[in-house]
Amino acid sequence: MKKYVAECIGTAVLVVLGCGTAMLVGCDAANGSGYLLTALAFGLTIVGMAYCVGNISGCHINPAVSLGVFMRGGLSLNDFIGYVISQVIGSIIGSGILAIIFGVGGVTDKTGGFGANGLAGVNGNPLAGLCVEIVLTFVFVFTILGVTSEKAGHGSFGGLIIGFTLVLVHILGIGLTGTSVNPARSFGPALFAAFTGNSAPLASLWVFIVGPLAGAAIAALLYNYLEE
Amino acid sequence: MKKYVAECIGTAVLVVLGCGTAMLVGCDAANGSGYLLTALAFGLTIVGMAYCVGNISGCHINPAVSLGVFMRGGLSLNDFIGYVISQVIGSIIGSGILAIIFGVGGVTDKTGGFGANGLAGVNGNPLAGLCVEIVLTFVFVFTILGVTSEKAGHGSFGGLIIGFTLVLVHILGIGLTGTSVNPARSFGPALFAAFTGNSAPLASLWVFIVGPLAGAAIAALLYNYLEE
Amino acid sequence: MKKYVAECIGTAVLVVLGCGTAMLVGCDAANGSGYLLTALAFGLTIVGMAYCVGNISGCHINPAVSLGVFMRGGLSLNDFIGYVISQVIGSIIGSGILAIIFGVGGVTDKTGGFGANGLAGVNGNPLAGLCVEIVLTFVFVFTILGVTSEKAGHGSFGGLIIGFTLVLVHILGIGLTGTSVNPARSFGPALFAAFTGNSAPLASLWVFIVGPLAGAAIAALLYNYLEE
Amino acid sequence: MKKYVAECIGTAVLVVLGCGTAMLVGCDAANGSGYLLTALAFGLTIVGMAYCVGNISGCHINPAVSLGVFMRGGLSLNDFIGYVISQVIGSIIGSGILAIIFGVGGVTDKTGGFGANGLAGVNGNPLAGLCVEIVLTFVFVFTILGVTSEKAGHGSFGGLIIGFTLVLVHILGIGLTGTSVNPARSFGPALFAAFTGNSAPLASLWVFIVGPLAGAAIAALLYNYLEE
Repeated sequence: MKKYVAECIGTAVLVVLGCGTAMLVGCDAANGSGYLLTALAFGLTIVGMAYCVGNISGCHINPAVSLGVFMRGGLSLNDFIGYVISQVIGSIIGSGILAIIFGVGGVTDKTGGFGANGLAGVNGNPLAGLCVEIVLTFVFVFTILGVTSEKAGHGSFGGLIIGFTLVLVHILGIGLTGTSVNPARSFGPALFAAFTGNSAPLASLWVFIVGPLAGAAIAALLYNYLEE
Repeated sequence: MKKYVAECIGTAVLVVLGCGTAMLVGCDAANGSGYLLTALAFGLTIVGMAYCVGNISGCHINPAVSLGVFMRGGLSLNDFIGYVISQVIGSIIGSGILAIIFGVGGVTDKTGGFGANGLAGVNGNPLAGLCVEIVLTFVFVFTILGVTSEKAGHGSFGGLIIGFTLVLVHILGIGLTGTSVNPARSFGPALFAAFTGNSAPLASLWVFIVGPLAGAAIAALLYNYLEE
Repeated sequence: MKKYVAECIGTAVLVVLGCGTAMLVGCDAANGSGYLLTALAFGLTIVGMAYCVGNISGCHINPAVSLGVFMRGGLSLNDFIGYVISQVIGSIIGSGILAIIFGVGGVTDKTGGFGANGLAGVNGNPLAGLCVEIVLTFVFVFTILGVTSEKAGHGSFGGLIIGFTLVLVHILGIGLTGTSVNPARSFGPALFAAFTGNSAPLASLWVFIVGPLAGAAIAALLYNYLEE
Repeated sequence: MKKYVAECIGTAVLVVLGCGTAMLVGCDAANGSGYLLTALAFGLTIVGMAYCVGNISGCHINPAVSLGVFMRGGLSLNDFIGYVISQVIGSIIGSGILAIIFGVGGVTDKTGGFGANGLAGVNGNPLAGLCVEIVLTFVFVFTILGVTSEKAGHGSFGGLIIGFTLVLVHILGIGLTGTSVNPARSFGPALFAAFTGNSAPLASLWVFIVGPLAGAAIAALLYNYLEE
């Protein structure tokens, strides 16, 4: 049970810090500083959570990561399902905390949609969006499987390297899809955006479920081949 | 005694480098570079101090951190009181060093108040300010308790991870409350701002004492539950 | 064989993330944020790949690095040749993935040439370009040989330090030559730029083969002298 | 002898990458991105050099650091003198390499003086400049002595932490004195600036010798007291 609570907390923190930063400072490509700040917010949240939530549950806080670990044999089917449900609940809680802070404080949401992912950067083309999410999630999950490999023995380096890799995939992806690589991170904000009248994120949500899961599966298969 | 001297030095350095950078480069959300520079200045000070002051006292340099460690059983009540007093004195010394450098050099303080925390980013709403400080301090102290957990054994990674997490909570928080998560860091600048005719920071100082202490207490209770 | 697959994947990822970021956000010196984002994209790709591809092949993903390791006795001649071929193929694959993403999504390539290297920053002077590439590659490969030295025993720190050093040489070099320090990274984009009508990068490609290989050779000779 | 060669190379690399970045991108406070790029260039050079030059000589590449280590008993008087001479020679070589690259390539030096340190940021006031350099060098050397303490046993973390701390002291200091904290780094550029007709840096050079050495001495005395 504690593992599930930990996954829920970690995902909520990811949404509050990552999506919250995008909402506060904006993150379009023309505004380079907001772009970098948002990338750092997502990545550094993983750095932090990996060393607290990670002590309890491994700090997946992402269904695509849980799928990759499951395919490598590091998670039971029951735990896979429990982790994903906890992550989705965490994402909703995180979005709710943002609704409270931005609502009570009267702060403008510069993304106009709780920092949800979308296809504006690829001119609404879902195929381009899928390509981007598959490639970025492949890079992210491939790195996770490598740095946490018991055979390689990188010890406590994991969280730091994984967090920096999440900064990396945001640097390329924010201007294209906003970078999901994480269906749970996309779900809560899309839901809250729909509640407040912006239904576009919910309409393209499938791209940010299918893309990340496909990218993670490719990463797991390839890493299985490379490291017997 | 040396522990107290170390905590005093570390807190003074945090105020000089962190608040000094805000004063020099400014840190409103429209000025993205100053925003990032200020976040990095606070966080990298923790990175540095953790490996020198930390060798002597553990490098709390923050009453909220000392409260969290105390609640986890890592600090006696006497030391908790001694640490907090040393941190507050350090914050005043740090503010004094900034007054000398900026005064003698004739450098403009772009924050207009020694880099003190305030509620302008949340339209003066103290409830929103409290929410922000509770959430950010929870993330910060929760990470500290995890990465320094003896059971988890992350060794010398602590300072680096904690510092990056302080960068993180500044990235979201600067545009909202200026990010305190540290009553001592808020105290000295608020006092010096009042001396120079800007009494707003002192009036809202209670938010930056109550919020961080509450967030730290929640983090300690939750981490106690998660890691028995 | 798996080593070669790993080198190919790693080089493809470097081109997709590094050159892709340059194409998306632009990277001239007047646009400071795009400059930093591009430097971080290249460097953090090495950070990530070092801990996954690196478990299999050592993560050279750069013929200049392979030359340095070969000269220090850490690679057979057969493997040196195999690594270089794999890296060049990876660079072409990476450029192809970028062509698909930017083409399907209708995204503008702000570099006008797949992020290829060039001499615009040194006013077209190949001698200045060679100097820059020799100096930067020397710094990069010298650091790699030091941090991976078995005698020094820095363990898992290698990838992190090497990646940060690649950020570093991009910070100075982007405004001068775009920073190659890697003939494979230069090859694919120059080829694809030529396909789309911009033949300048292919004409100056020799600078980004000769310079990096010369810099790496100097680094290997000097490190051989310093650490017997 | 090899130690001296290593110190000379490391200091040359620091001047080429650090001062070269300032010359290329500029680093005044109004240009936030150049400011951060310059801070990162200096700091990341230390990160890199610590793991190659550091294997041979400890990577001081700074007379103030050598003074601190000497006062803590980690360096003989002969080596202290040899290190300082090597560092000054390295700084001159580094400035010469910059003169070649910027001269041959026809690149504009945006600092107008080889990235030399100066007092413009503190309105020409040498007392303010001394205060800044003493405080910043104290923070830098205090951290070095802590993270390399054998008693604390932080192992290979040293270079990374020291480099990040150099980024930190640049973040506050660039807008005030340009941040020296290193008499050797100041010497070469001041000399080359004078050769090209800008004699101001040479006139204020004493501030960047006295300040850093005083700050380092205070750090050594204080750390001696704290860690018996």
